[in-house]
Amino acid sequence: MYRWLKLDYLRPAQLIVLFYVGATLISVCLLSLPFALKEGVHWSFVDVLFTAVSAISVTGLSVISTVDTFSTAGIFILMFILQFGGIGIMTLGTFFWLMIGKKIGLRERQLISTDQNQTHMSGLVRLMKQILTLIITIELIGALVLGTYFLKYFDTWQEAYLQGLFASVSATTNAGFDITGQSLIPFAQDYFVQTINIILLTLGAIGFPVLIEVKEFLKKRQTSIPFRFSLYTKLTSVTFFSLMFGGALLIFLLELPHFFADKAWHESLFYSLFQSSTTRNGGLATMDVSEFTIPTLLVICLLMFIGASPSSVGGGIRTTTFAVIVLLIIAFARGQKSIKVFKREIDEEDVRKSVVVTFLAMFICFVAFIILTATEPFSFMQIAFEISSAFGTTGLSMGITSDLSTVGKIVIIALMFIGRIGILSFIFLFHIKEKDTHYRYPKERIIVG
Amino acid sequence: MYRWLKLDYLRPAQLIVLFYVGATLISVCLLSLPFALKEGVHWSFVDVLFTAVSAISVTGLSVISTVDTFSTAGIFILMFILQFGGIGIMTLGTFFWLMIGKKIGLRERQLISTDQNQTHMSGLVRLMKQILTLIITIELIGALVLGTYFLKYFDTWQEAYLQGLFASVSATTNAGFDITGQSLIPFAQDYFVQTINIILLTLGAIGFPVLIEVKEFLKKRQTSIPFRFSLYTKLTSVTFFSLMFGGALLIFLLELPHFFADKAWHESLFYSLFQSSTTRNGGLATMDVSEFTIPTLLVICLLMFIGASPSSVGGGIRTTTFAVIVLLIIAFARGQKSIKVFKREIDEEDVRKSVVVTFLAMFICFVAFIILTATEPFSFMQIAFEISSAFGTTGLSMGITSDLSTVGKIVIIALMFIGRIGILSFIFLFHIKEKDTHYRYPKERIIVG
Ligand SMILES: [K+]
Ligand SMILES: [K+]
Repeated sequence: MYRWLKLDYLRPAQLIVLFYVGATLISVCLLSLPFALKEGVHWSFVDVLFTAVSAISVTGLSVISTVDTFSTAGIFILMFILQFGGIGIMTLGTFFWLMIGKKIGLRERQLISTDQNQTHMSGLVRLMKQILTLIITIELIGALVLGTYFLKYFDTWQEAYLQGLFASVSATTNAGFDITGQSLIPFAQDYFVQTINIILLTLGAIGFPVLIEVKEFLKKRQTSIPFRFSLYTKLTSVTFFSLMFGGALLIFLLELPHFFADKAWHESLFYSLFQSSTTRNGGLATMDVSEFTIPTLLVICLLMFIGASPSSVGGGIRTTTFAVIVLLIIAFARGQKSIKVFKREIDEEDVRKSVVVTFLAMFICFVAFIILTATEPFSFMQIAFEISSAFGTTGLSMGITSDLSTVGKIVIIALMFIGRIGILSFIFLFHIKEKDTHYRYPKERIIVG
Repeated sequence: MYRWLKLDYLRPAQLIVLFYVGATLISVCLLSLPFALKEGVHWSFVDVLFTAVSAISVTGLSVISTVDTFSTAGIFILMFILQFGGIGIMTLGTFFWLMIGKKIGLRERQLISTDQNQTHMSGLVRLMKQILTLIITIELIGALVLGTYFLKYFDTWQEAYLQGLFASVSATTNAGFDITGQSLIPFAQDYFVQTINIILLTLGAIGFPVLIEVKEFLKKRQTSIPFRFSLYTKLTSVTFFSLMFGGALLIFLLELPHFFADKAWHESLFYSLFQSSTTRNGGLATMDVSEFTIPTLLVICLLMFIGASPSSVGGGIRTTTFAVIVLLIIAFARGQKSIKVFKREIDEEDVRKSVVVTFLAMFICFVAFIILTATEPFSFMQIAFEISSAFGTTGLSMGITSDLSTVGKIVIIALMFIGRIGILSFIFLFHIKEKDTHYRYPKERIIVG
């Protein structure tokens, strides 16, 4: 067992930031390799940086056309970066979940090696192997299914399977990149491709801890050992699917008199469902989202801002954070002091975290909005959409990404980065460790609201 | 002593809502009186309702031109409604502050009569008399000063003193109505009028409890009895003036290359200071705010959304609510569990209230925004500005108020009403009283952010 690096000496937040800064630098180098580009393609440093951050944060916003810029080798490099970014954050996120989860099952704890309450790098490596195996398995199955199905669309089998592989990787890691040149719009009528994509997107965005628990559950069902899902898994899953189906319903109702006016019910259904699912963090689209009306676009902004589950490949404030805020308001209106859900109480510390994360996220997006309204010539709607998409690492766009000014691109790069590492890591990066306050002051009531 | 109504049997929130619904109905009747209007003026019911709610909530948004619609009698009726609205909310707000404030000074408690912990209507009446005396005194001094000064602007002394009285009442109650026909724009170069207005606006918006305490302080300074300002007074005053001067600085810096480019430094200074002060709840303006650039307008939106002190004539989420949120984020980043400020700790309950109020306020404004983008032909900036102004009961506008559709007017009416009664009253209105939860569940940690 190699314990060359005790994690206790490196704070989690710093580890995550370190990982992403390192990974971004490597990605910039890889994407600058001459053989990664098609002949005659030249791009500016800020565009390379933008693509690197977008890829490593699996956002999918793009200032360039992937298919026109990259050679086949470049496409494989890009897939590698997406893979690395997606699996990296899943591993780190899950790892810290297991580290704090003193109360979770022994079997899950065994995923990371611990002795005398010290967590070691070896646990991290073992966990990464587990996640890697699971994700690659999902991706390969996806690639096989999609590639085989694509034989009817493409001339050669090489092209079909390359498209299938890229589509599967992009969907599973929720990267949102495409090599069709126009996202999933060519498959707007192909419900099979869309269904497979929704499944892959969901497996990537629901969070690794949920996948582990479901696996455990399926194993135990064959025996008579009772299995209890963790509060985290229940809460994040319910929120995830509520947002997906609630979002689809809202999009459907809002667009019924507009975009869906001349569409069949099954078309409208799939357009709604796919566009709602994709905000939960895929970033692929089966239509040009600008065709939606403003109210729908605002709802989509909110959905992207909320984002995916923690410890998943997605960004945003995360599903559980949103759920805690909603539960807090309900509990308050009912006059309850603690938040009770699924016969458990939510820890005060997690409530505080959720509140702070949400406010800071809104503040950061508001400042970004002020800057972009000053530097960019686009409409408020386009800018708000781009910001939510970047912060949520979603990757949907109303088409302004490549026309952003350099300042605009840098702001979006920063948002993708913060959205990716998460607001908490961002706070703890500037965490001033003070002697915790053992002194107390008397409490005094004030008037608020 | 008349104790025909024990307040304990009527919940505070219900009392406030009852008061405002009743006052709105009376205002609608008063404003419909034929002699209140100039000859030949006809207006729709929704416009009467809009004006009544705007007046009783001392917002100042207007779908009609006050000076072209009302006769002199009508102007006095309007002043009476502003007076009633402004003093009403100040009384009720202060009253509930005194009711919860078990720890505040005996002398302040004596303001409301209590026996055996029962609070009676008589205390409310006595408090209202105190507030009425104070406000009327301030208004009369203001009217005298402004009226005398206005002699140089107007032809007759009657006109000068009517203008002075209306300006003083409108400023002190932070009503934002004007009978100049163009707010304070005629006085854009008159720093004396502006200074008097800023003072009156501040006295109205800083909150009655602060005024009481300052009065107590001045009294005790002559003796040797030590006086301690309450946490509430310290917190709200510091926040109030920080927002005022911080806002002015931000406006100044943002507009330096734009609106202030060709202005003298003292002009820019007064434009900044006045427009910042007015967001703290006056709603008067010395310029057409649409001339500001987008980033400045967004900052003004935020300032209006925050609003004035609780127990004042102003609306919004209130200064203390905003202060608690900011302190919460700072405490969290420092790793402190409790919020310490001015050598006191903020009660957990007040923190919860602040958080819930802010989230609900944002949610309500977001829904209003979605509705208005669907029903109105105006820009996002104009709509966002109108919504912040209505919710903050500020009354500034980019000029779209009178062109709103009927649906739009109703949404703005609702926002002014909610902004006025406050989010907390709004929640408690729907408060489902449950048996408080003596049962507990085990706590379980989750992942957020
Ligand atoms: K994405
Ligand atoms: K006002």
